[in-house]
Amino acid sequence: MPRYKITIEYDGTPFVGWQRQAEDMSVQQAIEEAIERFSGEAVRTQTAGRTDAGVHARGQVAHFDLARDWDPFRVSEAINFHLKPHPVIILACEKVDETFEARFSATARHYCYLILNRRARPALEANRVWYVATPLDADAMHAAAQTILGRHDFTTFRSAHCQANSPIRALDRFDVRRDGELITIEASARSFLHHQVRSMVGSLKLVGEGRWSADDFRAALDAKDRARCGALAPSSGLYLMAVDYPENGN
Amino acid sequence: MPRYKITIEYDGTPFVGWQRQAEDMSVQQAIEEAIERFSGEAVRTQTAGRTDAGVHARGQVAHFDLARDWDPFRVSEAINFHLKPHPVIILACEKVDETFEARFSATARHYCYLILNRRARPALEANRVWYVATPLDADAMHAAAQTILGRHDFTTFRSAHCQANSPIRALDRFDVRRDGELITIEASARSFLHHQVRSMVGSLKLVGEGRWSADDFRAALDAKDRARCGALAPSSGLYLMAVDYPENGN
Repeated sequence: MPRYKITIEYDGTPFVGWQRQAEDMSVQQAIEEAIERFSGEAVRTQTAGRTDAGVHARGQVAHFDLARDWDPFRVSEAINFHLKPHPVIILACEKVDETFEARFSATARHYCYLILNRRARPALEANRVWYVATPLDADAMHAAAQTILGRHDFTTFRSAHCQANSPIRALDRFDVRRDGELITIEASARSFLHHQVRSMVGSLKLVGEGRWSADDFRAALDAKDRARCGALAPSSGLYLMAVDYPENGN
Repeated sequence: MPRYKITIEYDGTPFVGWQRQAEDMSVQQAIEEAIERFSGEAVRTQTAGRTDAGVHARGQVAHFDLARDWDPFRVSEAINFHLKPHPVIILACEKVDETFEARFSATARHYCYLILNRRARPALEANRVWYVATPLDADAMHAAAQTILGRHDFTTFRSAHCQANSPIRALDRFDVRRDGELITIEASARSFLHHQVRSMVGSLKLVGEGRWSADDFRAALDAKDRARCGALAPSSGLYLMAVDYPENGN
């Protein structure tokens, strides 16, 4: 059976997250229903990252198999037609080898987190950012972020419900920069723990406010204690930007 | 009576435009009701630019008078409190001289127009851009835009319902640049005619598609004939970014 890899953009606001749930609409369900509507085949998609409710994607990746051999461009056009009116769109579709696994073949995940840092709440960026009124020192946040790069036990920055076998992850990039009122945080790793980015960002905010030093931030990591984590940053600011694979890039 | 100048951000999507109408909600009505709720005073705001339905603002300016002398920061906080849940927010408030007029004192208006130029419709930028699937040549659009800078009769790019006395305007800036899938168009002038930016952008799209040359674009202007204008670009891509004043900037 031909396997298809799709790259997906979505506004996470109206969804319960990527994963199917009994009652409310998930991104997965929206996509699988659209696939079934054009192909007549009931499929189960596998994804690179099961984003939480409210989390957005500009480059989520999933794969699925169809019995029939379709032209990949027609597949993306047909899914997009049937996805309306959901705020989900297939950006690209390609046929891949049957050994390709959206989740397990991935070599890197790239997330972006946006903070709108100003006095007034957002009008145009509602549900697209974390609105923080307290002035944040983005340079201090960036310096603190650099202290936790590399391979560590990220228990502090891991959800109590995280199902990963190991809390060890290698953080390859964790950059913070300010552009006017907008603070952009970029995080890259082969894989992340559940709530890891939002936990790290929530703790970085304490650094930005001057309540934590860079040393405090690093000490929180070293404590390997969930109780040392800052308050979880909201899902509205988080974007899954891209997923890398060995051969075909993101 | 003290006069207040407010700088405003809004998502134009749910509104009938800036100006009050009998039936549906306008930005003006939302703001005036919020002012009355905190001050007890029924005011009429005057604005720098009466944006149409669906047009956004990142730096709209308006003024109003109140009998009571309030601290301007408290005025902005109070309006913002009462503006909820409308996607409208006061970014700044200052007390200004009684000779200040948001409309007539303005020395320049700066608009931005965003085109999302890719095959797939927008999920995250719905209602924030003009979605154009045909590949556009942004460099050709920029070159054509430069040919109409300066003082001209803009009858071609003016709504049939425009109420300005003269079709003569001086276009000071009209830049087009591409950043990935996003094309950003910036237009500045002391003032614009009704639908001028959207008319110019709609015509520039024909240049981007290769259907018009830069000479065709300039010839459309010179014809001073509304029938020569390309189809009006939709309101969802247009943003009033800033308004300049002689002393206090924007």
